[in-house]
Amino acid sequence: MELYDAVLTTRAMRRYSDDPVTDAEIVHCLKAAQQAPSGGNLQPWQYLVVRDDALRAEVGALYRAAYDRYERTLLAVTPRFRTPEDELSWERSTAASRHLADHFGEAPAIVLFLVPIIDWTPSDAEGPMDIGPLHASVYPAVQNFMLAARDVGIGTALTTVARIRHDELRALLAIPENLEVAAVVPMGRPTGRFGVARRKPVSAVTHWDQFGTKRTDTEPAS
Amino acid sequence: MELYDAVLTTRAMRRYSDDPVTDAEIVHCLKAAQQAPSGGNLQPWQYLVVRDDALRAEVGALYRAAYDRYERTLLAVTPRFRTPEDELSWERSTAASRHLADHFGEAPAIVLFLVPIIDWTPSDAEGPMDIGPLHASVYPAVQNFMLAARDVGIGTALTTVARIRHDELRALLAIPENLEVAAVVPMGRPTGRFGVARRKPVSAVTHWDQFGTKRTDTEPAS
Repeated sequence: MELYDAVLTTRAMRRYSDDPVTDAEIVHCLKAAQQAPSGGNLQPWQYLVVRDDALRAEVGALYRAAYDRYERTLLAVTPRFRTPEDELSWERSTAASRHLADHFGEAPAIVLFLVPIIDWTPSDAEGPMDIGPLHASVYPAVQNFMLAARDVGIGTALTTVARIRHDELRALLAIPENLEVAAVVPMGRPTGRFGVARRKPVSAVTHWDQFGTKRTDTEPAS
Repeated sequence: MELYDAVLTTRAMRRYSDDPVTDAEIVHCLKAAQQAPSGGNLQPWQYLVVRDDALRAEVGALYRAAYDRYERTLLAVTPRFRTPEDELSWERSTAASRHLADHFGEAPAIVLFLVPIIDWTPSDAEGPMDIGPLHASVYPAVQNFMLAARDVGIGTALTTVARIRHDELRALLAIPENLEVAAVVPMGRPTGRFGVARRKPVSAVTHWDQFGTKRTDTEPAS
């Protein structure tokens, strides 16, 4: 499909049918991920694709336990809603996230993005240099992966809350201690439709030349 | 263009012609960025689009100073090359990065991605919860932006080394202290061609079910 349509309509899909996802489709998406940029083209990430039924169920149980804990905190800080649409959107989203937590292990494939835990701050005679976070060199790959999946009709969601159970997840999947789990991405055929997710308008978060300067006159409606 | 072609052929483009980039094109790309996922759909990022000639020149000077320092460290740890192709690729890449540093302020537009500097670790009675890095909620947006740019023939590069001059960059562009610069993305019409960048094969970094388990039998060549 057209890139722009795909980018606009790739949203978190959290309910999957029983239809399969093939290894070839997963590798197709990983090839897209692989072309993402990274600092110095170091490509620091690795992929772990969980397909085994029993392992997926165990990852699902860990995800659910992590989400249970997260949800209690999340729901305690429910935002104030400006409009009924905002409230409806919040309720739909939290219901979908709850559904995902209850069925995480049933996703046909679960893909983990791993990066090394390293000191990413070089030093010279002047001292340490902040050259940016290592995570700049993995999340673009996750996005490429999810876009390629959407292109072939597969739904995904970028999740990170499983890190609440990071050590158990590492032990379960034999992930070395010097790697962190940057993302856990379930994938499956969505039962719902892809569509443009609710977002703030671009104009609300865009500044021109200096922070705080808006240029609504030159900015097309968004 | 087709999503998959665009994803595979979006690579860092570091040499730009004098051809303009329009505000409408920039906003078109920002709309793509805006649809990226974020934790709790919080969309924590903001954009700062630098178009003014004098400001771009000053951002360029800061970028160059930052890159000069970074390059000295980088070149001191030049990797050993396994093949002449690897060496050629490294030389081309460092030459292109040097060119970008020398001409950064000449890019028709420079887009900064800003995120709040906040404690992203909620706590409950059990203690703090690692729900993943805040940066998971900005770099997918940067990737969407660069893909949308590539789709309309605009080259970009995801850079972070300007953080070596973070405070001066903030002062120059009136960026509040509670925001960090996650990425500085120059954009312009490339003088070279888009193409598939050199990357490790997917099979080299993919594990199946448990870390360390390879399944080359089911994995298409990559």
